[in-house]
Amino acid sequence: MSYNKTPSITAETINSKVRIFTYEPCGEIVRHARGLEQEIYENPGSLPFQEIIYCNLGNPQALGQRPITFFREVLCLCDNPPLIYRDEARALFSPCALKRAKKIVESLPGRQSGSYTSSQGVRSLREAVANGISARDGFPSRPEDIFLTDGASSAINLMMQILIRSPEDGILCPLPDYPLYSASIILHGGTMVPYNLTEDSGWGLEIFEVKRCLEDSRASGLTVRAMVVINPGNPTGQVMSITNQEEIVEFCRKEGLVILADEVYQDNVYTENKKFNSFKKVARSLGYDHNELSIVSFHSVSMGYYGECGRRGGYMEICGFGADVMDEIYKLASLSICPNIAGQILISLIMDPPKIGDGSFETFMAEKEETCSSLIKRAKALHKAFNSLEGVSCNKFEGAMYLFPLLHLPPLAISAAEQEGVSPDVFYAHRLLSATGVVVVPGSGFHPISGRSHIRCTILPDEEKIAEMVPRLQAFHEAFMDEFRG
Amino acid sequence: MSYNKTPSITAETINSKVRIFTYEPCGEIVRHARGLEQEIYENPGSLPFQEIIYCNLGNPQALGQRPITFFREVLCLCDNPPLIYRDEARALFSPCALKRAKKIVESLPGRQSGSYTSSQGVRSLREAVANGISARDGFPSRPEDIFLTDGASSAINLMMQILIRSPEDGILCPLPDYPLYSASIILHGGTMVPYNLTEDSGWGLEIFEVKRCLEDSRASGLTVRAMVVINPGNPTGQVMSITNQEEIVEFCRKEGLVILADEVYQDNVYTENKKFNSFKKVARSLGYDHNELSIVSFHSVSMGYYGECGRRGGYMEICGFGADVMDEIYKLASLSICPNIAGQILISLIMDPPKIGDGSFETFMAEKEETCSSLIKRAKALHKAFNSLEGVSCNKFEGAMYLFPLLHLPPLAISAAEQEGVSPDVFYAHRLLSATGVVVVPGSGFHPISGRSHIRCTILPDEEKIAEMVPRLQAFHEAFMDEFRG
Repeated sequence: MSYNKTPSITAETINSKVRIFTYEPCGEIVRHARGLEQEIYENPGSLPFQEIIYCNLGNPQALGQRPITFFREVLCLCDNPPLIYRDEARALFSPCALKRAKKIVESLPGRQSGSYTSSQGVRSLREAVANGISARDGFPSRPEDIFLTDGASSAINLMMQILIRSPEDGILCPLPDYPLYSASIILHGGTMVPYNLTEDSGWGLEIFEVKRCLEDSRASGLTVRAMVVINPGNPTGQVMSITNQEEIVEFCRKEGLVILADEVYQDNVYTENKKFNSFKKVARSLGYDHNELSIVSFHSVSMGYYGECGRRGGYMEICGFGADVMDEIYKLASLSICPNIAGQILISLIMDPPKIGDGSFETFMAEKEETCSSLIKRAKALHKAFNSLEGVSCNKFEGAMYLFPLLHLPPLAISAAEQEGVSPDVFYAHRLLSATGVVVVPGSGFHPISGRSHIRCTILPDEEKIAEMVPRLQAFHEAFMDEFRG
Repeated sequence: MSYNKTPSITAETINSKVRIFTYEPCGEIVRHARGLEQEIYENPGSLPFQEIIYCNLGNPQALGQRPITFFREVLCLCDNPPLIYRDEARALFSPCALKRAKKIVESLPGRQSGSYTSSQGVRSLREAVANGISARDGFPSRPEDIFLTDGASSAINLMMQILIRSPEDGILCPLPDYPLYSASIILHGGTMVPYNLTEDSGWGLEIFEVKRCLEDSRASGLTVRAMVVINPGNPTGQVMSITNQEEIVEFCRKEGLVILADEVYQDNVYTENKKFNSFKKVARSLGYDHNELSIVSFHSVSMGYYGECGRRGGYMEICGFGADVMDEIYKLASLSICPNIAGQILISLIMDPPKIGDGSFETFMAEKEETCSSLIKRAKALHKAFNSLEGVSCNKFEGAMYLFPLLHLPPLAISAAEQEGVSPDVFYAHRLLSATGVVVVPGSGFHPISGRSHIRCTILPDEEKIAEMVPRLQAFHEAFMDEFRG
């Protein structure tokens, strides 16, 4: 009998789809940073900085953003419902939070916040989300269309798993992309069909460019199933105009493409003359209903003025699929039985926060506005700093949580990078980290047009820290340019 | 130009791997139950029962199990850390919980429980888990080997994604199986290699049967990569003997198979003469270290005396893979950035609960023992009830949270099922639900040897509810048998 004796498991013998994707925001640069952090811990004073500043992720609370009190009061009470009925709790919790927590707990299975819920999420919490969407858009949203999720990432992965059948299935994605998309498409065995955003027009999306990509990929035999749009943009920070969104809606309707709308930065818009519009709102405004266009909108508790990323909560609103497809989506979601309850509660609070007249409204608004105005200040300070650097240009900043400056690096730096076998942006980012302790993601991790070097840097460190960072960035950059100017 | 115009998305045009798997614990029977629940809500009194009793899932808190106070106190304080420092909090929280919460919060990124953490989980919480494992096994566990996860399901899916490369890769799984395994193997494109547990010897695992399955599948060209073992068993409720575990360890070592050890019911053992032993402990006791055998152990916050399933927390301990594989596992985990923080905290508390001398120890032990002894009472009552039914036999109950009685149904019932186009167990389970409001999972959802009918029923309803359920079960079964006895 001839045996196929199993080889032991090595990196060469695991699933090659896992091996080939990259996810730079948590990749090599973070490993480098952790090493330096260990060094600081073991030999304090041995490096030219005292701490690592993690600007690689949009991780607001790790960088000093404080959570919204009302949200945390409610979470806390739902964790320990007997508190709701204790007199002593009145000294510690607002009446508003006590009331909301009571309402939520009473709607949970077994009135306990530790039960499995429906795989789609608790009905009452989905109603809160749907009401929030209806109020935001001015068009009705239905709890049946809402799936609560463990953050947007798991929801995006789930939709890719539904849509992708084989390498002949393509998904249109913007470049630069948020690398979760390319990774997820690779993992699920599909083909990414990239379309370029135009840096020189403020990272604008040109519909003729998308059309060209669609046609080329169809000509090569692909079946394109969906178009990913990220608005506000990550890593690029632009906010789409409504005209641009209308073009996309018309295009996807005509071409039979599902719109996968990454709308996780909907509460991070910083420009006076643009506001966030959901793709569903744009479609409904054009008169297209459920039957005419499929749209999946992803949202999350991670960003905005709330920044509750470690809680892993979110929703997807799924419009325009038949009941049979919804059943399959439900079945796939049920494989992890249900999203975590704290995340479910949080997304319901975010979509249905205190209203005028509620006791907690004023504190809530004051905290929200403090965070939002501080985000603008921080973005402006960093934007100005990057643009002050020799050979660095940074597009105007409209939304999301990142700057994505373009680096014009000297030829000597480029060849030094080449000698180390890395791309110039990777070379620059590691040098920056070693000199300043600031962790940014090399732009190549977001797959922009080749030949251009960028870094992605979050705007989130608190104002004090940004004030410290800026001179360090400037000094590093000056020294770097001096070294390689030749 | 010839276009491959994208078809609209229908259940026929989604990923066929999603379409073909089944996951009965959340499947058709639950849909039926939800319909009846709606009926009770809309027309109270219209059905012969007042409520649906969900025995389809191991969902302790939904069925009346109370959470452990200490765990919830700590969770609650971590949600709202300013409370830790408020004098008024001393009236509401034990000193022990205040101390633990403070320690945890101080170890979180930005000292906030809303930050992204390492994709592997917070280091200090992994240390707590590793210490708990070391204490449990008497062999060292390292925090580097621990990945905190959103429950066991996501961890199992992740490992399948790592191990499976193509349909030529096989994974050995027990039958009856917990259907997450078959579903996950299908979704990731591999081949399930089933081995039968022997009902007539108390669901024993016979190593010669596993060997036969391995050899057959190798002969047919498969590369078998891993062996799933579920101990205590789900749906079957047996606890493995140490001799049996030793045989499995020797077999997997010799054959180069990874042991995927589902150990989520480690705190649900109800028999005096058996105890839980982890596969890692058994391997180390035999003298096999990291280099000789790869073992992944899955655990979760969902079961045991804690029953915190809605929280989605867990860990996997990964031993015997090289650093390069660990890096790939980390990368794959980083795609969802990190497990939810409440779940991370909970699993650390479960693995490192109050100890003798801690202020909370006595309350903790009293609550734990109350739940454990009540679980035994409930299991006994249900076990006795099933065995009292005509033509029903239920193996002895050693562990986990389910009974899996064998139904000997009359030929007329079998042909009635056939006429409805369903298997006899499905027919029986829906009849049971319609008559009593009790939801059980048809045994065919767990893929036992064909020709045998079972149902899976959790032991979790509280004692009062079980006392109510039993006469209803008995009355239904008698009527059912009378109807079909012929």
